[in-house]
Amino acid sequence: MEKFELHILGCGSALPTTRHFATSQVVNVRDKLYMIDCGEAAQMQFRKSHLKFSRLNHIFISHLHGDHYFGIMGLISTMGLLGRTADIHIYSPFGLQELLQAQLDSFYNKLAFNVVFHVFDTKETALIFEDRSITVTTIPLKHRVPCCGFLFSEKPRPNHIIREMIDFYQVPIHEMNRIKNGADYIMPDGTIVPNTKLTKPSDPPRRYAYCSDTMYNEKIIPLIEGVDLLFHEATFAQTEEKRSKETMHSTAFEAATIAAKANVKKLMIGHFSARYENEMVLWEEAQNVYPDTILAKENLYVNI
Amino acid sequence: MEKFELHILGCGSALPTTRHFATSQVVNVRDKLYMIDCGEAAQMQFRKSHLKFSRLNHIFISHLHGDHYFGIMGLISTMGLLGRTADIHIYSPFGLQELLQAQLDSFYNKLAFNVVFHVFDTKETALIFEDRSITVTTIPLKHRVPCCGFLFSEKPRPNHIIREMIDFYQVPIHEMNRIKNGADYIMPDGTIVPNTKLTKPSDPPRRYAYCSDTMYNEKIIPLIEGVDLLFHEATFAQTEEKRSKETMHSTAFEAATIAAKANVKKLMIGHFSARYENEMVLWEEAQNVYPDTILAKENLYVNI
Repeated sequence: MEKFELHILGCGSALPTTRHFATSQVVNVRDKLYMIDCGEAAQMQFRKSHLKFSRLNHIFISHLHGDHYFGIMGLISTMGLLGRTADIHIYSPFGLQELLQAQLDSFYNKLAFNVVFHVFDTKETALIFEDRSITVTTIPLKHRVPCCGFLFSEKPRPNHIIREMIDFYQVPIHEMNRIKNGADYIMPDGTIVPNTKLTKPSDPPRRYAYCSDTMYNEKIIPLIEGVDLLFHEATFAQTEEKRSKETMHSTAFEAATIAAKANVKKLMIGHFSARYENEMVLWEEAQNVYPDTILAKENLYVNI
Repeated sequence: MEKFELHILGCGSALPTTRHFATSQVVNVRDKLYMIDCGEAAQMQFRKSHLKFSRLNHIFISHLHGDHYFGIMGLISTMGLLGRTADIHIYSPFGLQELLQAQLDSFYNKLAFNVVFHVFDTKETALIFEDRSITVTTIPLKHRVPCCGFLFSEKPRPNHIIREMIDFYQVPIHEMNRIKNGADYIMPDGTIVPNTKLTKPSDPPRRYAYCSDTMYNEKIIPLIEGVDLLFHEATFAQTEEKRSKETMHSTAFEAATIAAKANVKKLMIGHFSARYENEMVLWEEAQNVYPDTILAKENLYVNI
């Protein structure tokens, strides 16, 4: 399986503690890195996770609360000091550039790259990024300010060649790409060799859905149906349901309910409120509803 | 001795590493806290040093490079979430408010306190802060942008009463403040009891000088002459003297030379370049010139 990993840089909520950093994650797809949210000290956590700044070109910001973007300036500053020349692209709801422009202007003349801002609509799902390996689609969420989650989807990969059969039928090299993409092979004498004899299907494309910050919202279910991994915020336990609703966050129970209804393969909960000295209470609550639940943790990484 | 401590929150330079956070320190004078510089993640390090946010009312920023101020927004955000109502005062060279205003506006309506900016001139030394316990005076430094260090001076304290002598001469209570401040006591029969019989001098006022970022600059010597503790940046070793001059930083040798010429009681060096895996090379270089040298370190605190 090719690399498709999730690295947790921070999984606390607005109030950082000695246990948790503010929100930030990195998706690693075949050594290309995509950052999701960038809370304060994300760059230190990035380093601690042994990731390479030069591999990071795209940052996706869910919403404009400080615990999801205060780390951007430090990260950009560090990229500048490391001699970066490639542009960095930042995708966010409207307003981020306006929040950062004064600081960017203060050292823009010393950066050898551009910071390119891309604004997305938070009301409707849309494809906001695509390269050879993945697509990124927004997942509209319900929070106190405009907010979207992100669905990272691997692109379907060509079939795997069965080497022995290719040799047996003496398929010429120039036919190979067509065959990888599903074509049959027509031999010089006109005999048709069906594609299924020549190839094995590649691994099914994998998907990762990030949903934070949000209150319980069943509208996201069709968008995340069956994903390999769902990260859903679980700021509170059910005992704090009132506070959770007021602040438009989710409880662990609610996160697990979404996971169950969307038939996801695995659930990770995070964005823990500072009030929980130990998140086992959140894990147990979620795990009762949706057994395949894990807790996010700083510098944890999982294969998707 | 009353409390006069220095806490190091971060002592790296512009490029944070897994070993060092960006610059930030806290001076604790009788449980009132004064922050010097506020690099990224200063709030996490503040918490880790077991300091209380409610005790912090004044922040002094030496200059407007990101590694000295990127932590301010996170700190203010956290103060807001903790329900703070007391104003926070920030002292800096011109321009800091302009860098932060857009972000402050984005949550100003949710803060129950004001962020009050005070601008100081970086060309001449000046008294910029004073309360019952201390004064803070600027120390003009030479760096790539306008920059000042800070001299924290305890105010002289009243003499200590010698209880037995007060009883012996039957000094009335209403005379006590005068006597603590040096007055003689005149007995009902006109006899003069000299103050030296009634009091012992209090401990001499202590002073802490913070000098970062700066190139070697002998002009600061008269301002820091004889201080109890000097923090002087030592970004590089002498082997990097060229780079040090280009970036207008100091070497460990230069920091120690300043300490020796200013007859300070103790030197702490910090603001270490990310290139040094181990700062012992900097310590040895400084220590050869000025023996009473210590290395800054995250979450270290020293009594001044």
